[in-house]
Amino acid sequence: MTALPQVVPLAGLPPAITIYEVGPRDGLQNEAAVLGTDVKAEFIRRLVGCGLRTVEITSFVHPRWVPQLADAEQLVDQLDVGAGGVRMPVLVPNERGLDRALDKGIRDIAIFASATESFAQRNLNRSYDDQFAMFEPVVARAREAGMTVRGYLSMCFGDPWEGPVPIAQVVEAGGRLMALGCTELSLGDTIGVGTPGHVEKLVAGLTDAGVSADSLGGHFHDTYGQALANALAAMRCGVTTIDASAGGLGGCPFADSATGNLATEDVVWQLHGMGVETGVDLDALVATSRWMGEQLGKPPVSRVVTALA
Amino acid sequence: MTALPQVVPLAGLPPAITIYEVGPRDGLQNEAAVLGTDVKAEFIRRLVGCGLRTVEITSFVHPRWVPQLADAEQLVDQLDVGAGGVRMPVLVPNERGLDRALDKGIRDIAIFASATESFAQRNLNRSYDDQFAMFEPVVARAREAGMTVRGYLSMCFGDPWEGPVPIAQVVEAGGRLMALGCTELSLGDTIGVGTPGHVEKLVAGLTDAGVSADSLGGHFHDTYGQALANALAAMRCGVTTIDASAGGLGGCPFADSATGNLATEDVVWQLHGMGVETGVDLDALVATSRWMGEQLGKPPVSRVVTALA
Repeated sequence: MTALPQVVPLAGLPPAITIYEVGPRDGLQNEAAVLGTDVKAEFIRRLVGCGLRTVEITSFVHPRWVPQLADAEQLVDQLDVGAGGVRMPVLVPNERGLDRALDKGIRDIAIFASATESFAQRNLNRSYDDQFAMFEPVVARAREAGMTVRGYLSMCFGDPWEGPVPIAQVVEAGGRLMALGCTELSLGDTIGVGTPGHVEKLVAGLTDAGVSADSLGGHFHDTYGQALANALAAMRCGVTTIDASAGGLGGCPFADSATGNLATEDVVWQLHGMGVETGVDLDALVATSRWMGEQLGKPPVSRVVTALA
Repeated sequence: MTALPQVVPLAGLPPAITIYEVGPRDGLQNEAAVLGTDVKAEFIRRLVGCGLRTVEITSFVHPRWVPQLADAEQLVDQLDVGAGGVRMPVLVPNERGLDRALDKGIRDIAIFASATESFAQRNLNRSYDDQFAMFEPVVARAREAGMTVRGYLSMCFGDPWEGPVPIAQVVEAGGRLMALGCTELSLGDTIGVGTPGHVEKLVAGLTDAGVSADSLGGHFHDTYGQALANALAAMRCGVTTIDASAGGLGGCPFADSATGNLATEDVVWQLHGMGVETGVDLDALVATSRWMGEQLGKPPVSRVVTALA
């Protein structure tokens, strides 16, 4: 079975796709079992060993909010951040988090914004408009320090409190993040409700507004089974970065029914089948996810991991 | 949440898609718990009540091979086959099965062929070439009797014994089934290994060989998480029929690791999000799959069913 999938290219894709691995941060922060720092460091080293070149490693959030990531500094101390050209971004919720990132010599950060008023209030305790004011000095200071800044934008395809989210509103929010100086914009289907026509239209709206497709990331949840088809729709529109979580770890603890990150193995299977190089050793990644499943005491949800077990 | 998914059309799709529901046959035949005939009849009536217009109901296979479907005649007796324009095809493995279908006044049948030598030997106990000789009188007599005949072609994207399957070989096999008189050709990714470029190239190969895209069905398994993305790839190429199984019931008992039919709810979610009418009442279908899960003593694997629970 190692000769499968058969490699048959798909026309119209970008020449290269970056897998943005979110397992250690977005994945683990939503797992109930709190792991030791050494286990997390080992997880990240194994992911890098599988060939992943961008791994979001933790969050400089207040420990009260995400106990799983309370050891951010200690974790960074155990890692050789920046070695071998591997990017290891850290989520930074505010200026205090940025200070911590600067103290640790982090080169890549991410901020987390909302496309909707309801989720801004619930997740950030700020209004939709106020969140941009909060992020302005974070992004400005980070860019001044030479960091790259990813802007996560959540609830891009629907909101559990508001229902439908107008595409124009998401385009406006994304444009504001880029105008602040973000170097990348990750479009989050936080509750997993989006479908491919919606993906295409949102990407088109953003590129029409001057945001280049190759600065976009697609962050799709598999809550309704749509994640991989949506990721492909995004890539067909020129999106070059796909967020994925090894084994399918995690979801979002702040939103009801927001489960199921796209599993890295499942998108790698698709990309390799289409002849797109990812640099990822799939067998090694499957082994890593199985190992992490043992640490957490639950099997990975990735279908590829399950099938190859 | 009933307003989600937001409806945003995707350009380039066929104007209408037929969901070919395989749960009562392909689904149940791979479930260990043997159900009563009245439960199966109720399942089919509920599926039709959800708006599904094509439901494969059973198989006139020898009871020794598929004990779950040993009650085919009794099941047909409990159904109003053909009422309201709903198609209720029955799988027919050979001339004996065709005789049984004719006895019961069935109007739509399906035959089950293999694109590979290995699976023909294992599933049909015949060589690749001999299977066509076996099917020739079945299709000829069925067409003479005015039946429609669907040709299932399995292992189109890979074979667990042979590994890769050349596209030219699948095109040849599909062409032979159509030349026998099949009215529809269902392309089976029996082990779920295919990816979208492969789907596009196979469909192109068949249309180049004179098989029209709107006589093709896509039958994708979710073993590696690829089913929905592959179904969309097929539809983008003009394929108008997608096989799916309510709740994600079943797989294939004759092939290792062949688990996971595409769940009807998951593809309906996608189609409705893209503005494609299916005629299916999704909430009613979710309720039906939950009910069937109770009959089987296991929850449906469909992500939509899980998310809406």
